[in-house]
Amino acid sequence: MPVNRRFTLARRPHGLPVAEDFALVEQTTPKLREGQFLLRNHYASLDPAIRGWMDDRPSYLPPIRLGDPVRATTVGVVAESRCADFPVGSWASGLHGIEDYSLCSTGGFTRPIDPAAVPAVTNYLSAVGAIGLTAYFALLDIGRPKEGETVLVTGAAGAVGSLVGQIAKMKGCRTVGIAGGPAKCERLTRDYGYDAAIDYRGKSPDELARAIREAAPKGIDIHFENVGGEILDAGLLALNPRGRVVLCGLISEYNAEPRGARNIWQLIVQGARMEGFILTHYIPRFGEAIPELARWVKEGKLRVDEHIDSGIENALPAFLRLFEGSNEGKMILKIAE
Amino acid sequence: MPVNRRFTLARRPHGLPVAEDFALVEQTTPKLREGQFLLRNHYASLDPAIRGWMDDRPSYLPPIRLGDPVRATTVGVVAESRCADFPVGSWASGLHGIEDYSLCSTGGFTRPIDPAAVPAVTNYLSAVGAIGLTAYFALLDIGRPKEGETVLVTGAAGAVGSLVGQIAKMKGCRTVGIAGGPAKCERLTRDYGYDAAIDYRGKSPDELARAIREAAPKGIDIHFENVGGEILDAGLLALNPRGRVVLCGLISEYNAEPRGARNIWQLIVQGARMEGFILTHYIPRFGEAIPELARWVKEGKLRVDEHIDSGIENALPAFLRLFEGSNEGKMILKIAE
Repeated sequence: MPVNRRFTLARRPHGLPVAEDFALVEQTTPKLREGQFLLRNHYASLDPAIRGWMDDRPSYLPPIRLGDPVRATTVGVVAESRCADFPVGSWASGLHGIEDYSLCSTGGFTRPIDPAAVPAVTNYLSAVGAIGLTAYFALLDIGRPKEGETVLVTGAAGAVGSLVGQIAKMKGCRTVGIAGGPAKCERLTRDYGYDAAIDYRGKSPDELARAIREAAPKGIDIHFENVGGEILDAGLLALNPRGRVVLCGLISEYNAEPRGARNIWQLIVQGARMEGFILTHYIPRFGEAIPELARWVKEGKLRVDEHIDSGIENALPAFLRLFEGSNEGKMILKIAE
Repeated sequence: MPVNRRFTLARRPHGLPVAEDFALVEQTTPKLREGQFLLRNHYASLDPAIRGWMDDRPSYLPPIRLGDPVRATTVGVVAESRCADFPVGSWASGLHGIEDYSLCSTGGFTRPIDPAAVPAVTNYLSAVGAIGLTAYFALLDIGRPKEGETVLVTGAAGAVGSLVGQIAKMKGCRTVGIAGGPAKCERLTRDYGYDAAIDYRGKSPDELARAIREAAPKGIDIHFENVGGEILDAGLLALNPRGRVVLCGLISEYNAEPRGARNIWQLIVQGARMEGFILTHYIPRFGEAIPELARWVKEGKLRVDEHIDSGIENALPAFLRLFEGSNEGKMILKIAE
């Protein structure tokens, strides 16, 4: 039986995770029961949401148990199988763990994938995976963009944000992206088609609010939030009547006491809506989006950047890039060739 | 020409308004142009929203100009008219000012009213006026209650909150009300049919959250917010998946730097919606609600309490009751018999 290296949660982090919060342990792979299969993980998706699952608080998914591998979406090849839907040698994706081999069964997010339908199998962890589905449903179903509207995206160069900007452009919107630093801002307009880019670094809340008003002279119809904090409050000040705030992520708050939104009075004044997006509520509708996302990627209509770090032993520094902002594209960990 | 006493805004308040922010001035009433009429105001509605209009910041209505009477909804009798829809001697209601006589024209909120359709003409400033319309549309249109759901109302003994609780009961919901002090809490269950009452006074945020969970063991489906601050954050912790937070008012914030909502991460985790309610967006639909509200009041299905202080010279102390919480029912100022 092959050895299974697992990146496990050893204790619950306080603030930013540190090395002592984790352990790299080796186990033998388990014996399969009927209906189960063993997935050789090739790639794992590193997402900010994982930080929330490390905490011991009620959430849409149970906390990661201490000693369990850190939960992540992976793609891999079926190595052993007692499940007819997942034959040995076929590819699959699902919410598994950062480990060489995951014991899987059907249900939830786990599904077969077709590497031939996309330029690279890692696309199932980016534009055709959870982040693509997030951008798609959160923008289209919660934001409900109309042609000619203005969409503000925070974390705009990030995995979700870069896709949101491009899909909003396809729907005929003006797009304004906020990101940290001149290099990311250049990518916003050059690579992701944003009409305007705002560098939040070095700007006071007032300066940020002014920059948003300048970039969006007709105000903001949809505020797509990935970051939270002062950026969210600045955007709320520019919100139009009946505006929509899509709360997709609050990465600035995941390692700190939450600041939340101080300017929610704007929701009253503008008769506006702020709605949280949680991908699990959309599982029954994944089939609507996956073929369209795959087609957009294959036809070059949707640019997807992936930042791939290699080696399960590098899981923590790779994960921390999300909070440093040092990744350029969707953060993925390569576990095996 | 009659003398017109006007309660005007002399300067913009900082925090809680004080006497020096206002002036009581006397003017002669203006000469009418074609299409205008002069309304002898009998009663003015005192609402927390008025505090927002005193600030010089962008809003759904322009700020009250310095030297203008403080804006308020009034009911009165047409004293002079050059407008066929509003003959002399008929009753009308609209967004006018705290003054003896208002110069009016048609449009906006201004409309004829029928005192015979309700037990008291002041009901057009309470259950059949802006606050009744607010409770009606904010609960039914934004909250969308379903039978068997749990509705949490903050400021539950207040003008809007007392109506929201009763309408939610009519729709088959379990209702939990939060108010300040045992007397108000007694009114919640005795007068407004709340299933449970929580006194927020003397409770830490954790204690408040615990009290909410005890009163709503199945969680909160609709959180109807009139107050804001720690109460809002405590309620967010008990929000159910796909919960709705109706942001109707944030009275705890109107005289202070806003705290906002720190626990908006719950909106993401629960896939929940927080939506601001602004009555002006519903003007085209008033006709749906007014006859139903009037019927409920007349048939005794909707209890409405009014707290009427007398005399334009008492406008400020009457207004400040809203922030002290010393009113028992909808706050109304009697200007004339």
